[in-house]
Amino acid sequence: MDMKKRVSIKDVAKAAGVSVATTSYALNHVKSSRISDSTASHVREVARRMGYVPNLSARTMIKRKSQLIGVIIPQTGTTNEMDYRNPFYAEILSGIERVTRENGYHIMVSGTGPNQDYSNIAQMRQLDAVIIIGTYPSKFLDDIRQTGIPVVLVDAYVEDDAFHQVRTNDRQGGYLATEHLLELGHRSIAFVSDAVRFPGVFEQRYLGYRDALKAWGLVPEDALRYECNVSYIDSLRLAERIVREGCKADAFFVAADVMALGLIHGFISSGVHVPEDYSVIGFDDMILASMSMPQISTVRQDITRKGEVAAQVAMDAIKSDEKQYICLPLTVVQRGSTGPKSSRKETGL
Amino acid sequence: MDMKKRVSIKDVAKAAGVSVATTSYALNHVKSSRISDSTASHVREVARRMGYVPNLSARTMIKRKSQLIGVIIPQTGTTNEMDYRNPFYAEILSGIERVTRENGYHIMVSGTGPNQDYSNIAQMRQLDAVIIIGTYPSKFLDDIRQTGIPVVLVDAYVEDDAFHQVRTNDRQGGYLATEHLLELGHRSIAFVSDAVRFPGVFEQRYLGYRDALKAWGLVPEDALRYECNVSYIDSLRLAERIVREGCKADAFFVAADVMALGLIHGFISSGVHVPEDYSVIGFDDMILASMSMPQISTVRQDITRKGEVAAQVAMDAIKSDEKQYICLPLTVVQRGSTGPKSSRKETGL
Repeated sequence: MDMKKRVSIKDVAKAAGVSVATTSYALNHVKSSRISDSTASHVREVARRMGYVPNLSARTMIKRKSQLIGVIIPQTGTTNEMDYRNPFYAEILSGIERVTRENGYHIMVSGTGPNQDYSNIAQMRQLDAVIIIGTYPSKFLDDIRQTGIPVVLVDAYVEDDAFHQVRTNDRQGGYLATEHLLELGHRSIAFVSDAVRFPGVFEQRYLGYRDALKAWGLVPEDALRYECNVSYIDSLRLAERIVREGCKADAFFVAADVMALGLIHGFISSGVHVPEDYSVIGFDDMILASMSMPQISTVRQDITRKGEVAAQVAMDAIKSDEKQYICLPLTVVQRGSTGPKSSRKETGL
Repeated sequence: MDMKKRVSIKDVAKAAGVSVATTSYALNHVKSSRISDSTASHVREVARRMGYVPNLSARTMIKRKSQLIGVIIPQTGTTNEMDYRNPFYAEILSGIERVTRENGYHIMVSGTGPNQDYSNIAQMRQLDAVIIIGTYPSKFLDDIRQTGIPVVLVDAYVEDDAFHQVRTNDRQGGYLATEHLLELGHRSIAFVSDAVRFPGVFEQRYLGYRDALKAWGLVPEDALRYECNVSYIDSLRLAERIVREGCKADAFFVAADVMALGLIHGFISSGVHVPEDYSVIGFDDMILASMSMPQISTVRQDITRKGEVAAQVAMDAIKSDEKQYICLPLTVVQRGSTGPKSSRKETGL
């Protein structure tokens, strides 16, 4: 095998005509009265010319900094694989990766489930910080917190000031989506989401939906609340059932784009027109929202930006213990799946 | 901060009543005449009871194994972010992550572009292996090869036996897609892809398309070859242009699903029916292929499986220098976007 001879710190010291200790100080940018700035820069120049590559394991042991940030993404239940089929995780990872890389960090990505012990992994790797995406049981979070490694929670709904947090204002987003439908003239608006049993994004979006209805003098009705798995095909079947059984709603606020897409296709394949018969607004502005016919009106969160912010918070947390709590704003993107309440509905579908 | 006191190797040695050297041998499973098996297992039991977590940086320095595998994903040109919006990368990463995790490895994911120097990073991190997804310039690959770290190329078209390779039989896939259209009665079949300038998947798919035409006694025509960016919106515009300018094809083999989706939507919005007027078959079986109307017939590669295989090859490569070259098979999935050649076409669109 064609292996490059690795240049050691001793080689650099010899070539620069200084001691190994001085070389180490210079290469690690340690300020010391024992070496001058000109010596330090001379050593670094020699190292650069010789193609010296520092050994990060050694540096990690000395500095107790690995320049490695752990990122945890939920596993899917069925396959034990990272929940990557949901494009949300891919986009947020993209933002995290770029910002950390540009600042000299690398990311270690794990699909650890809530019942696995990540705190051991974090300690073994001497991770500088951990970014956890999604909701995990408090035991899982406690174990990591006790390692003393800074933790940034993304989209968690945890009231615990031991953690840094980055999330979006989902309640405001739910409000905006519902308000958009109200402004188009709709008064009977259904809410579709996963079962809203736990504190989390769907509960917040539902609360925003209720806020908007109340602000317009309307009363939220249980009959207009639909639950469905966050799945394209299950949402498509829900739409078919809604058409079969009838529904007094004239608009749907669907708490995730992938469900909105399934719902729209289920309506269309049942002969119902979107937006003429039913307006549908989604949430997230996934790439698929603009790759459908009609294109889907939705609540946009800048997912890549969320990843970038999470990365910045994690890097700040390595240097300062001051907790950050960042709540990113949302906006409505109007596309083809929502339109004014038509008279057609009045005459029966 | 509520920091757990870390149990050191000295603590374990003291509790077990042996020297630090003996403890280190036992915990690292080093065979030595100086310690018996029963001592070794006693030490390991004490360490387990005390909740000892090894320091991987120290272990990496001693063993020169980091248990860390690097994964390189291409950056998008425009944003300098990982090309994550393409769900292919997300799915393959999911397969790599699960298999490596189950075998005690972690993955470090980088969005390194072809002009960045990854060989330094690989050496600094003492990566055990590197998995490179996609096509990179030979200079980039040479630099990594010279580090001596085992490299697995996924979907590269490089003839160099210094690398392990995992890819799919794209030429066979192109053949199968074209054969599917021929069997449905189509004889004038267009080929749509990115510019086929370099050796790569699109060239292979094109060669398979030509193979199939020739096998059926047909001559490939340049007039039936369309080039377009691998982009939903550009493909949609191409379809509009095809309808405007006219096209003698009655079926389209499109070398990527995202382009097939754009093409289909462009046809539909121009008043052309799929599959009644034009049959369209894609390639990849991305999740979006089954979330469209009509659902897209396509050539299926099991992307998660490809990631799993790449991970296994990388782990094998850490232990053995024997090069592996794995070519995964493809299959056609028939859905709603392809159908028999109709008589409608004959009477003019």
